[in-house]
Amino acid sequence: MTAAPVWSVDPRTGKRREEVAREAASEDVDRAVRAAHDARAALAERPARAALLRTAARLLDEAQDEVVGTADAETALGAPRLTGELARTTAQLRAFADIVEEGGFLDVRIDHADDTRTPPWPDLRRWKVPIGVVAVYSASNFPLAFSVPGGDTASALAAGCPVVVKAHPDHPATSELCASLLRRAAAEEGLPEDVLVLVHGFDAGVALVRHPLVAAAGFTGSVRGGRALYDAAAAREVPIPFHGELGSLNPVLVTEAAAAERGEEIGAGLAASMTLGVGQFCTKPGFALVPEGAAGDGLVKALTEAVAGGRGGVMLDHRMRDAFLAGAAERAGLPGVQAPVVPGPDGDHGVTAGFLTVPAGRLAAGDEHDALLEECFGPVTVVARYAGDDEAVAVLGRLPGNLTATVHLGAEEAAGADGRGAALLELLTPLAGRVLVDGWPTGVAVAPAQHHGGPYPATTSTSTSVGGTAIERWLRPVTYQSAPQALLPPELHDDNPLGLPRRVDGRPETGAGRPAPRADADPGTDADTDGAAGA
Amino acid sequence: MTAAPVWSVDPRTGKRREEVAREAASEDVDRAVRAAHDARAALAERPARAALLRTAARLLDEAQDEVVGTADAETALGAPRLTGELARTTAQLRAFADIVEEGGFLDVRIDHADDTRTPPWPDLRRWKVPIGVVAVYSASNFPLAFSVPGGDTASALAAGCPVVVKAHPDHPATSELCASLLRRAAAEEGLPEDVLVLVHGFDAGVALVRHPLVAAAGFTGSVRGGRALYDAAAAREVPIPFHGELGSLNPVLVTEAAAAERGEEIGAGLAASMTLGVGQFCTKPGFALVPEGAAGDGLVKALTEAVAGGRGGVMLDHRMRDAFLAGAAERAGLPGVQAPVVPGPDGDHGVTAGFLTVPAGRLAAGDEHDALLEECFGPVTVVARYAGDDEAVAVLGRLPGNLTATVHLGAEEAAGADGRGAALLELLTPLAGRVLVDGWPTGVAVAPAQHHGGPYPATTSTSTSVGGTAIERWLRPVTYQSAPQALLPPELHDDNPLGLPRRVDGRPETGAGRPAPRADADPGTDADTDGAAGA
Repeated sequence: MTAAPVWSVDPRTGKRREEVAREAASEDVDRAVRAAHDARAALAERPARAALLRTAARLLDEAQDEVVGTADAETALGAPRLTGELARTTAQLRAFADIVEEGGFLDVRIDHADDTRTPPWPDLRRWKVPIGVVAVYSASNFPLAFSVPGGDTASALAAGCPVVVKAHPDHPATSELCASLLRRAAAEEGLPEDVLVLVHGFDAGVALVRHPLVAAAGFTGSVRGGRALYDAAAAREVPIPFHGELGSLNPVLVTEAAAAERGEEIGAGLAASMTLGVGQFCTKPGFALVPEGAAGDGLVKALTEAVAGGRGGVMLDHRMRDAFLAGAAERAGLPGVQAPVVPGPDGDHGVTAGFLTVPAGRLAAGDEHDALLEECFGPVTVVARYAGDDEAVAVLGRLPGNLTATVHLGAEEAAGADGRGAALLELLTPLAGRVLVDGWPTGVAVAPAQHHGGPYPATTSTSTSVGGTAIERWLRPVTYQSAPQALLPPELHDDNPLGLPRRVDGRPETGAGRPAPRADADPGTDADTDGAAGA
Repeated sequence: MTAAPVWSVDPRTGKRREEVAREAASEDVDRAVRAAHDARAALAERPARAALLRTAARLLDEAQDEVVGTADAETALGAPRLTGELARTTAQLRAFADIVEEGGFLDVRIDHADDTRTPPWPDLRRWKVPIGVVAVYSASNFPLAFSVPGGDTASALAAGCPVVVKAHPDHPATSELCASLLRRAAAEEGLPEDVLVLVHGFDAGVALVRHPLVAAAGFTGSVRGGRALYDAAAAREVPIPFHGELGSLNPVLVTEAAAAERGEEIGAGLAASMTLGVGQFCTKPGFALVPEGAAGDGLVKALTEAVAGGRGGVMLDHRMRDAFLAGAAERAGLPGVQAPVVPGPDGDHGVTAGFLTVPAGRLAAGDEHDALLEECFGPVTVVARYAGDDEAVAVLGRLPGNLTATVHLGAEEAAGADGRGAALLELLTPLAGRVLVDGWPTGVAVAPAQHHGGPYPATTSTSTSVGGTAIERWLRPVTYQSAPQALLPPELHDDNPLGLPRRVDGRPETGAGRPAPRADADPGTDADTDGAAGA
């Protein structure tokens, strides 16, 4: 039996561009995982990892024209967006290089032996080690930033874990190109190329998550696909962590005061955010609670004008286009639902954006209207008009977990005088991993404090796939008890020769063996550097 | 249908002591979870949590005689051990009170808005919030430290999560007593008693992990029971984190040099560790690699004398006793296995300790001898005699995941001169979450740097159930974007009024808004306290 060919397809025409690769059979997956597994030792040292990430960023930047051109041909996302996405992707690789070098993610904790305890404490030195080979499942909608060279790969390599990437079928040529650049970066740094291996094919993806040498997985995609892989990861003889980002409605709550003060601006902002990238962002605001009455009417009018005046676009593939058109039509046909701007086809290959409105009271019953509380991938949003706080709160209570939740406040509410703004933030916090005030959720800054995750189905774990702490997914702690320092890596030595931020004897130590300043201590005091501790 | 009675049983006689409670029906579990869920808000403030933990510790200490007496009557663990376990338990409650107050676990990260980035970064403020109601499954072998008032409960309450505990059937009276003390502590602190609710019964345990309002679970017990609950947690419509500690062999590697230098001491130490608590520790060293030849023979001789000279004991219940006797006999009957001291019955209710030996070469094939690589709960260990490093390494490579792995080194190996000691630590690190040198794994210090967890089946996640970081299991991160500081809790304010250790703009800040000292900065510089950031 010959392996099935993998085609690169132009979504603007639906036509095949070229045959890029062949789907991986189970023995190919096995070979890929074993090769990656054998490359582990090469990633043991942090400087090698940082160098790999920086060189990968440089090679990707140098290949910008080819990368952007290939990705645009396969995804129709356009050169400007993809140029920005590449810049974000290489910045992300460099940010993780910084994180590797800084070393705080190792979360080093040292407790010196303490004979005054009952029973006595031995010397304990804890840090985090790489978990092993990581399987990465690429997303359709970010062919760079959430695919082969994206955040899962960058954070896994930063953690010291080789990666086997399952390419997304919507951009196999981009995947091959990026994989070759990452592998070349490894070679340039004297590392095995197999620190990153690429495989194609649905069955390969299933075989990958089941492989005994795969230690963890990262996924960005649909609820259906992600849940199937999550279930496979949990059903293994040895279950593994599966960090999947599956789906999110990203609710927006507009208060009466906000609508009154900034209704037009909010309506236009919602239109821009929900149509960004042809509505194909994980963080697209897919549901907005807007007050009934004149202020809300003004918002909806501005939204109508902005959406109707916008241009259509081509979605990532025709299957998604069909699903979008069907999903929007199904929702539009529900009792009580109106479509001020009807989402629909744009020629043979494109779609036009639209939005639906529904009285919030329709969403209380748990009937067919629940479809409005599920993500519809593409340029459509649902505006639920609410009659008062209680109705808005009731609807929020029916939502599944989300990546983001947004509130638009009036000026006084935002100033905090009456406690209402704080109360609304508290109300939204259980719903999501990122809570925004007076902004839009599309656009996820690759910053240390970012959190891109949220209650299921937003994420299958409590982790983030963007930001500094994304590295935590690929590590596990190990504590050494009574181990002579001569046998341990320098990160765990008393004199902290690498200047890591650590916790020693229960309190922060922030570099070069210096204890953290605190109120009751002299900031100049040296840390305990007794090398005999714990012997 | 009447609910089944829950009996307290004396393992020294096998006789029922008293009827303690009734098994919880599914509607009882629902009521328990809802009551705990309604108590969430009362735990929102950290001072209330710290006060609860300290008062619980005090009430438990004050009730020492009753707690120890009740636990001994149900478990036969003896008053001295249980007195120590209670002291450890109340120290653990107080340690988590300290952790709550210190606040480092909130892992606050603040990135100020940065317009120089492309695209610009908004103001981002991340911390961790309680995950929701936690289900705790008590262990048989630590009726206090890993049961109702144990580490899972202490860390969950510290995190701000109400707890529903499923009592272990081996000590229902102790569970009821401890639950009543914890609930009284809540009442004394003006909190709802339902911050902790107790349920009994196997079916109740299953219903608990499936309840939609349960957000996470902690478990200590068998591979079989833990895996069933893990599977149920993963199969939910909304899967939840299941932090289970299931089983561990806790291998010990004795080098030729160690055996030659300290063979007698190591043999006696192994005997003491593996019989501690009638061999019913999760960290019992159940497998030791000892070199062939005279030095190893000396170790085995010392082990033989120590084990044969030890006293028998009563296990936690008769079912475990039967399983121990059957498991030991099955293993002893394998080809090539010898039993220098035969483990067996001691009267009608007790058992005597023993150990088995086997040539390490027998463990290479993956045949029936694999039973020797599985935990046998009770006072027995397996000594595999190895002919050289390669044989020892091959056996280690066949082991499942462990809580601990131990190496006993010769003096020169421990000094690090030849690199052999460090290489052996590297070899053991993939096997376990705690790696010990020249010690014994029984006894787990409740210290900030402790890690009590390890690769599956030791743990179903990468978390620990003992030590400061155990609290991380019950939290999830949330990032606030562009939220005015007036709407956020003080933990996230620029001026750091609570003096928390945080990371601000990518670097550690260690209290009272002061940045951490670093080489290129003046340690006296004040942190940015621009309240307008991110507006």
